[in-house]
Amino acid sequence: MPADPRFHPRSGPFSLAAVARAAGGVVAAAPAAADPERRLFSGVAPLQSAGPDEVSFLDNRRYLEALRATRAGAVILQPDLVGQVPPGTIAIATDAPYLGYARVAALFHPAPPPTPGIHPTAVVAPDADIGEGCEIGPYAVIGAGARIGPGCVIGPHAVVGPGVVLGAGCRIHAHASITHCLAGDRVVLHPGARVGNEGFGFATTAEGAHVTVPQLGRVILGDGVEIGANSTVDRGSGHDTVLGPGTRLDNLVQIGHNVRTGRGCVIVAQAGVSGSTTLGDFVIVAAQAGLTGHLTIGPRARIGAQAGVINDVPAGTDVLGSPAWPVREFWRAVARLRQLAARGGDGKGRVARKAAAGRAGEDTG
Amino acid sequence: MPADPRFHPRSGPFSLAAVARAAGGVVAAAPAAADPERRLFSGVAPLQSAGPDEVSFLDNRRYLEALRATRAGAVILQPDLVGQVPPGTIAIATDAPYLGYARVAALFHPAPPPTPGIHPTAVVAPDADIGEGCEIGPYAVIGAGARIGPGCVIGPHAVVGPGVVLGAGCRIHAHASITHCLAGDRVVLHPGARVGNEGFGFATTAEGAHVTVPQLGRVILGDGVEIGANSTVDRGSGHDTVLGPGTRLDNLVQIGHNVRTGRGCVIVAQAGVSGSTTLGDFVIVAAQAGLTGHLTIGPRARIGAQAGVINDVPAGTDVLGSPAWPVREFWRAVARLRQLAARGGDGKGRVARKAAAGRAGEDTG
Amino acid sequence: MPADPRFHPRSGPFSLAAVARAAGGVVAAAPAAADPERRLFSGVAPLQSAGPDEVSFLDNRRYLEALRATRAGAVILQPDLVGQVPPGTIAIATDAPYLGYARVAALFHPAPPPTPGIHPTAVVAPDADIGEGCEIGPYAVIGAGARIGPGCVIGPHAVVGPGVVLGAGCRIHAHASITHCLAGDRVVLHPGARVGNEGFGFATTAEGAHVTVPQLGRVILGDGVEIGANSTVDRGSGHDTVLGPGTRLDNLVQIGHNVRTGRGCVIVAQAGVSGSTTLGDFVIVAAQAGLTGHLTIGPRARIGAQAGVINDVPAGTDVLGSPAWPVREFWRAVARLRQLAARGGDGKGRVARKAAAGRAGEDTG
Repeated sequence: MPADPRFHPRSGPFSLAAVARAAGGVVAAAPAAADPERRLFSGVAPLQSAGPDEVSFLDNRRYLEALRATRAGAVILQPDLVGQVPPGTIAIATDAPYLGYARVAALFHPAPPPTPGIHPTAVVAPDADIGEGCEIGPYAVIGAGARIGPGCVIGPHAVVGPGVVLGAGCRIHAHASITHCLAGDRVVLHPGARVGNEGFGFATTAEGAHVTVPQLGRVILGDGVEIGANSTVDRGSGHDTVLGPGTRLDNLVQIGHNVRTGRGCVIVAQAGVSGSTTLGDFVIVAAQAGLTGHLTIGPRARIGAQAGVINDVPAGTDVLGSPAWPVREFWRAVARLRQLAARGGDGKGRVARKAAAGRAGEDTG
Repeated sequence: MPADPRFHPRSGPFSLAAVARAAGGVVAAAPAAADPERRLFSGVAPLQSAGPDEVSFLDNRRYLEALRATRAGAVILQPDLVGQVPPGTIAIATDAPYLGYARVAALFHPAPPPTPGIHPTAVVAPDADIGEGCEIGPYAVIGAGARIGPGCVIGPHAVVGPGVVLGAGCRIHAHASITHCLAGDRVVLHPGARVGNEGFGFATTAEGAHVTVPQLGRVILGDGVEIGANSTVDRGSGHDTVLGPGTRLDNLVQIGHNVRTGRGCVIVAQAGVSGSTTLGDFVIVAAQAGLTGHLTIGPRARIGAQAGVINDVPAGTDVLGSPAWPVREFWRAVARLRQLAARGGDGKGRVARKAAAGRAGEDTG
Repeated sequence: MPADPRFHPRSGPFSLAAVARAAGGVVAAAPAAADPERRLFSGVAPLQSAGPDEVSFLDNRRYLEALRATRAGAVILQPDLVGQVPPGTIAIATDAPYLGYARVAALFHPAPPPTPGIHPTAVVAPDADIGEGCEIGPYAVIGAGARIGPGCVIGPHAVVGPGVVLGAGCRIHAHASITHCLAGDRVVLHPGARVGNEGFGFATTAEGAHVTVPQLGRVILGDGVEIGANSTVDRGSGHDTVLGPGTRLDNLVQIGHNVRTGRGCVIVAQAGVSGSTTLGDFVIVAAQAGLTGHLTIGPRARIGAQAGVINDVPAGTDVLGSPAWPVREFWRAVARLRQLAARGGDGKGRVARKAAAGRAGEDTG
């Protein structure tokens, strides 16, 4: 079953040879009459729903059963699984099937190029500089002195603030706002993302009044940075907040003022990084994790889901828990706690009910 | 004290008989001269502030004191509490007082019907199909080929993407965006909700570069689905992301690509469900809980607040903790841990200060 | 290095005397020829990058090394650190250096006053009342009967709902929406903030259908309340949701219906407060903490990062953990758990891998 054409226009068809080339793989097993230049494919689809003219992939072995039952015309997968492909299906072998699939899917569904032009309802400051081939959508607002590189797409209602600089091929989706920012090429802000906001900085008087500290920095986004829907990236307080090239943020992520990341970091949904913490290259921060401020997280460290990090994390270390520990110690502690709980203890019913009271749907007046 | 008429226009008045009928209850105790057809009420109010012409309710026994002191003209409550109603107050008895109150409040404050018409500033694609009686607000943007059912309300600045289909009576509030989506009847997106976003899917090369995987699915929203303010629901990667009829999401919730829920699920504020996890019917996910990907959560399971679920949860099971356990075991472990902490241990002051450093207001340059 | 003038216009220069006066401090050490009225400064900058014509500050002793190496012309700091200031740098001593810096930074970078006027694209209801000197930006929507006090700034695409009242000097940033609300003076909504939304209130029938409970309250925002980017504050269900004067919310914070806070509370990024919970004056809720509903949190309590509060917290108490305990007990428990984990236990590899499966980037079809 092809991707819904209302939402996902398709290119093609493409030959088996072109597909294998895009996938970075080799045809490892195929029914007799499969001529690589003549055998055509019309699109991609998941294993469970693909038909004979579609290409699928297997990357997660939990889906082996789906592989054996698939009607897909071809499957991109690792060499050692080629033998499990059904008789009528062509196997395209590669060590990196997910990456191969990404490229084949993009072959059939290339990102639509900008439709150059400025919508008559867009408000563009007279001294803003819009690059060649940009698409500026309805009700977009481009501020004074902003400079937008060639081939950018600015979506409906998006706001690009005064002085902002965007490189080439950026995509600022509907309702996103970007201020106080210098961005490289191919930067993407998903719907509702907010970049350049005033950070949470204030001093408190003896009487308890909070006095705002002007936040005088900026946000620097490297090439290829992507920021998820409704995520928030605050500008620096004096230094800048910096996201290194290729760094990706999922949805509902918070990045505090003065945070710096290296290249290719991955920050998953609803995680938060407090002010002035630094991440090295290729750090992964899993969903709902939190890092306090002024920490240093070494390259290739991996922060587990819901972790609460309050100390520096060395390069290449995996941590989990709140407060976060090295993963091995965390699971050892969990195992010990389970043993202790199994041995006696009193399962306080009243306490259990209080926890239940925190759930939805029970509310009066 | 009535609801502020600037914000909550009122209908009525209504008779005691009409009120009891709407509440699905019976008049169980009333002062002598209370003629059900003649005794009129003008609105609803909480127990603490209601006057003699207002109807209140009691559902949470923590407010019994407020019941005894109330000046409300009538109170909707469970039969066994009728005796606690003050002498001047009419008791309307029902086994489901909160539901009864919902219906009485809606009697006095019906959802305002759409004001049919398309605001002159709305941008509506020529081939978009707008149903009868729709209200399209200022600066709304309706994309090519979108089909909007009868009686929908599209709020200021809302964006309905190309090809999107909405059933009857949907409400898309201010600043919400909905793309790549097929929605049933009575679907509600609260302000800033984002449906149909590109999910967090990418493959990583050996050098650490992240390559986007085109997300070729859609979002399917069943009848009566409601999505809270600033919540994010990503479209599927190949399959669809599906929210079953009657499912409700609170604010700041994240739903990853390919998630499927049954009917009537409840997902409370700031919770997150990772990609490809499936929820059965009537699952409750409490505030700030997180579920990893590719899990199966059985019908009527209840995931507690801040839980971290990394395994399947059987039907009807309650879990809590991170990693999540059955609730009883969780509280047993907490009790054991408290016992252990009471017996010695060294309360590291330095470590305690590090935790304090994670709090707001302490930041320098 | 001065703040980027594209984003942060500057006033000045100002004399040392004016700077010391703004800082609330005294010149404690200065090179011989430093005439307080003649010595001029052009701006502020962090210790690491400030030049001789810039003012810096030190509040966090972790940066002492940066102090000793600074080239800043002057540094605001506590009296006992004056001796550590480099020879060429002027020391401005005060007991509250961060507050002093806030005031000096505001001297050089005053908040830009509104540019009075209503953008031609703003949609303003005929009976809305716009105060003197307000700035209403492109595509702002002001609803029927709204009353906006003098000197307010309403940003691009912001929505002010029918009947809303704003005091003087409020700033509603781009894409924010505020409905069902009475706000005092100097209230700030950062981009994408959502105030007045319908809270998560519904009753459930025996068959599992959720029936909306009309939310008939409002949001009351005291003077100087600030709400962070993409944060959500729901209106009351019958009573009001109330944020006391000077209370500040960071980004991505959720405030449930009927929550009340005292003055000067601080709620850090991604924290959530469930319905009907009350916070006293000057309560601090750290990042990603969660509070269940119907609790009472006493004045000056401090809820630690990621805490899960399910019981009342007495005034002045610090709590941490989920479920939350007094901080001292929490750290004692952590210490005991670490001791237990060190003594045997089996570090289940399979379980560790499951946790890893929750991380980004591993997903198949």
